[in-house]
Amino acid sequence: MFEAHFQTFEDPESGVALSARLSAFREELTRHKLTGFVVPRADQQQNEYVAPSEERLAWLTGFTGSAGLAIVLTKKAAIFVDGRYTLQARQQVDGKAWAVESLVEPPPETWLSAHLSAGDRLGFDPWLHTTAAAERLAAACAKAGAELIAVESNPVDAVWSERPAAPLGPVAIQGRQFSGEIEAEKLQRIQGEIAKLAVDALVLSDSHAVAWTFNIRGADVAHTPLPLSYALVPKDGRPTIFIDHRKLSNATRDHLEHTADVEGPAALEPRLTALARRGAAIALDNATAADALSRLIQTGGGKPVRGSDPVSLLKAVKNETEIEGTRTAHRRDAVALARFLAFVDREAPSGSLTEIDAVEALESFRRDTGALKDVSFPTISGTGPNGAIVHYRVSRKSNRRIARGDLLLIDSGAQYQDGTTDVTRTIAVGEPTAEMRDRFSRVLRGHIAIARAVFPDGTTGAQLDTLARQFLWQAGLDFEHGTGHGVGSYLSVHEGPARISKLGTTPLKRGMILSNEPGYYKTDGFGIRIENLELVVGAEIAGAEKPMNGFETLTLAPIDRRLIDVALLSEAELDWLNAYHARVRTEIGAQLDEATRAWLDQATAALTR
Amino acid sequence: MFEAHFQTFEDPESGVALSARLSAFREELTRHKLTGFVVPRADQQQNEYVAPSEERLAWLTGFTGSAGLAIVLTKKAAIFVDGRYTLQARQQVDGKAWAVESLVEPPPETWLSAHLSAGDRLGFDPWLHTTAAAERLAAACAKAGAELIAVESNPVDAVWSERPAAPLGPVAIQGRQFSGEIEAEKLQRIQGEIAKLAVDALVLSDSHAVAWTFNIRGADVAHTPLPLSYALVPKDGRPTIFIDHRKLSNATRDHLEHTADVEGPAALEPRLTALARRGAAIALDNATAADALSRLIQTGGGKPVRGSDPVSLLKAVKNETEIEGTRTAHRRDAVALARFLAFVDREAPSGSLTEIDAVEALESFRRDTGALKDVSFPTISGTGPNGAIVHYRVSRKSNRRIARGDLLLIDSGAQYQDGTTDVTRTIAVGEPTAEMRDRFSRVLRGHIAIARAVFPDGTTGAQLDTLARQFLWQAGLDFEHGTGHGVGSYLSVHEGPARISKLGTTPLKRGMILSNEPGYYKTDGFGIRIENLELVVGAEIAGAEKPMNGFETLTLAPIDRRLIDVALLSEAELDWLNAYHARVRTEIGAQLDEATRAWLDQATAALTR
Repeated sequence: MFEAHFQTFEDPESGVALSARLSAFREELTRHKLTGFVVPRADQQQNEYVAPSEERLAWLTGFTGSAGLAIVLTKKAAIFVDGRYTLQARQQVDGKAWAVESLVEPPPETWLSAHLSAGDRLGFDPWLHTTAAAERLAAACAKAGAELIAVESNPVDAVWSERPAAPLGPVAIQGRQFSGEIEAEKLQRIQGEIAKLAVDALVLSDSHAVAWTFNIRGADVAHTPLPLSYALVPKDGRPTIFIDHRKLSNATRDHLEHTADVEGPAALEPRLTALARRGAAIALDNATAADALSRLIQTGGGKPVRGSDPVSLLKAVKNETEIEGTRTAHRRDAVALARFLAFVDREAPSGSLTEIDAVEALESFRRDTGALKDVSFPTISGTGPNGAIVHYRVSRKSNRRIARGDLLLIDSGAQYQDGTTDVTRTIAVGEPTAEMRDRFSRVLRGHIAIARAVFPDGTTGAQLDTLARQFLWQAGLDFEHGTGHGVGSYLSVHEGPARISKLGTTPLKRGMILSNEPGYYKTDGFGIRIENLELVVGAEIAGAEKPMNGFETLTLAPIDRRLIDVALLSEAELDWLNAYHARVRTEIGAQLDEATRAWLDQATAALTR
Repeated sequence: MFEAHFQTFEDPESGVALSARLSAFREELTRHKLTGFVVPRADQQQNEYVAPSEERLAWLTGFTGSAGLAIVLTKKAAIFVDGRYTLQARQQVDGKAWAVESLVEPPPETWLSAHLSAGDRLGFDPWLHTTAAAERLAAACAKAGAELIAVESNPVDAVWSERPAAPLGPVAIQGRQFSGEIEAEKLQRIQGEIAKLAVDALVLSDSHAVAWTFNIRGADVAHTPLPLSYALVPKDGRPTIFIDHRKLSNATRDHLEHTADVEGPAALEPRLTALARRGAAIALDNATAADALSRLIQTGGGKPVRGSDPVSLLKAVKNETEIEGTRTAHRRDAVALARFLAFVDREAPSGSLTEIDAVEALESFRRDTGALKDVSFPTISGTGPNGAIVHYRVSRKSNRRIARGDLLLIDSGAQYQDGTTDVTRTIAVGEPTAEMRDRFSRVLRGHIAIARAVFPDGTTGAQLDTLARQFLWQAGLDFEHGTGHGVGSYLSVHEGPARISKLGTTPLKRGMILSNEPGYYKTDGFGIRIENLELVVGAEIAGAEKPMNGFETLTLAPIDRRLIDVALLSEAELDWLNAYHARVRTEIGAQLDEATRAWLDQATAALTR
């Protein structure tokens, strides 16, 4: 009936031929006089989604998760994953060849210190690690009396015979009607930041930063319109963009050349080296710049200055055009969501739908808007116990029928040219239990506490995070993820630097967009998450003694009334919910077909005690 | 009628003779070929209260605040203070000789970079700065092409002709009935922490740590029973305490020698040097260790390992004996508080009391307990606009009569041998305004939110801080200090490492004692603060999925009912207040004289809507 164009449900290849790959790789290491090597799941820019040509970890180990690291030594090999991937890694890798170890606590460095011997030579590809990560590896080697060796070319690539080519997604212009600010103005602001840093130049090592600065979008990786590229911005004068010429049409080249010189990717190294030879201080982004960049600058005689890329903060604060675009995108998305939620309510109780059916239907309704560029990440569609797996991704094998008495947790998003969406709803199919209603109501109260929060200028996401958890804590419950992340404007659905989490130390500024997504997960039982995107706006309060901020909710979709225990909500919380539902009706009601409109009316009817 | 023994109300000396001191100091610098010098308000251990012999900043500049720094250059001199002391510094220092500058944002280093010239030689006393502070100074000098010089002896001391002698307060044993754990057991735990740090020895550069470890108390500084001293704890074997022999009786020496070698203060340097010569790695506390210690170790060939003193965390978690002691201390303190609050209610409305009268009365009631060792800090007693000055300290000159229609904010604490107290109450004299009641009720709601908080193991004070502010934020208001600090057990009333503040990154552990003191300050109007001490305890919650914690309130004193707008409180908040007041009655009612008991009954009567 429906189909998904932007995500697949195939199970990844199993261990076939992988042991041959590991032996070939070990031989390659020997040829290079290395006794070990580190293979991260990373590309040159630490992107969340990487091109197939960068999937070295999956090729070597069989593990296809989105975070991980392998270390191959002469006799031992281990793959390091975080808690959400432990099970998957055990299923995907050959247990005889690979040990599955912890990625976070303890980190791989602990394992390294225990397994390296004095005199060992551990190789790593400095293009695939940040400098901080490389320093941690070096420290672990030093502890064991071993040496960390930066290789010139990656030994995985030498043995990966059918390695895909690097992507060549065409670059498109993100016009002023979407971006709201021309490149020259953005450059002026960036050069203002470079002046504050007192450096000679800034490397944009993050393609998101290049895309934002030069108002372009690309098609090199899944779900994020990234044009894989670098840029070098001098403290004054014209910047240079480093990008494969084959991705550029004449029009996009003309667009870029208004403000920048355009060079091929290979030109980055000699340009940096030339700058370094003049003793330049060059700012590099902590989070995305490859250690290789730092080494290039240092070797050339320049001074790498590591810090937070100032573009990250500039990009996070959306301008009026972007804000208007995202509001439009959310109204459009809301129509698809209403159709989807009505569809599930109609079809699921008879047992006719699976998790995959839900994904396909939702994407189809979004495509029906005529504006869908991509989903902003693979939809999480989990029912029953699958809902309790926070980063669940349904496959043909795991696919579960949605049954009466179950909850369906569906977390999805869209890429439209005017904005990126991300929304989670939890739907009761049949009669929910009292426990489900209690938990849902606590999650909802936390969600509302964030949505209604008022806070002074300078407040960080870390300061708000607890508001989302307090009602779960009162019952001895919690959720093991942050409350919210930044969201881009037709860019990454996970965007820094601000977030609502105990680690969110960036002050929230007006114009930032963040998710608000508390949850609750009962292992082997059910999962609950309620997610809206929120825009940081000024809060007008009579008698306020300082500038205050609050949130404007962007997402417009009913929150399942059947899961709410009204007795648990305060008067103010109930008022918020009813006002939110009334707003959903007002903003999208007129755009719905009659049946969906009827469904929406009952799904958003005011709740009373 | 009453009098204060433990604090004075005299205004500090004004600028007499101070210009002569500055010229003499500059000549001394010239003799040492220095073009400048840094004079912090600090002793060797970064103590909050310093001995008169360490008051170099006050001697040189006239400024008597508890935080500040002076920098004297050949032609310019500046004193750096934070926002709370700007006014006081302008009044106290000679404006012709000294510029008053910012201590925090921007820091003195910004001023230094601007005012130092290439070739300047800026001196500093490495015993009075932490290594981190010294590094900041060095970086500022390097930026200006100047040199930072660590001096052998402090040039202030050379010209300070009547410098007081170092204190020789007698040392007393804090017996097991108060400490709850003998020294040998504490040492075993400390050596366990040293093993985790993988170092050869730990320097206890914080006298609080020495006092806790060896179960002693002293009398060297005001308000905190500190025995100024150092200790060196090797990874195994006997530690050494460095302390002036004249402070020890035979009994205290015997006590110490059970577990440690006792040496004079002068023995510290050669002992550290000897260890360093053997290449030892020696752990130093970031927050209190003088840069001189780090230099000694480095010069000797050892390895200083800077970090957080592990004793700080061990000391913060109180054992059952300390907890029982603090409960007893708080009940005792509560009797004095009830007498005091009844006294203010009786006397203040007639206009017969001043701020100083309040301080003297409260201290007298505390002395009447027969157990008062000291006040734990100079009482803050501020009425009307003085209440809005967060760190107000009343003097004869500032002393204000408590008038009808004013609020009296009184923040005070006691040192008893079984526990340290700290409590703030805000009292309405006559009829409070609607604004006062609104603000007080918002502060109270924040206070109750902390008192009632339930949170999982591992939660930090930073995660709780916002709970105290949320109701003020809703009205566009806030308070510009943290919500709470750790409190010692017959030690410092300000104790690390945990605190309830956006900077509080230490997880709260069961047995920690923290203050809960939200406030609101209307400049030139009034001040409000409600402070109780809270003990972190386990929270028993049916069905909890993880270990949860909460607070047990230790402080027992009525919260002024006349300032509460019941309509603003939720049902749960009102229940908390009434239950708290009932508990105050139950726990101390029987120990009060009849008049105070009658007062307490009405002051704690249940409030209803």
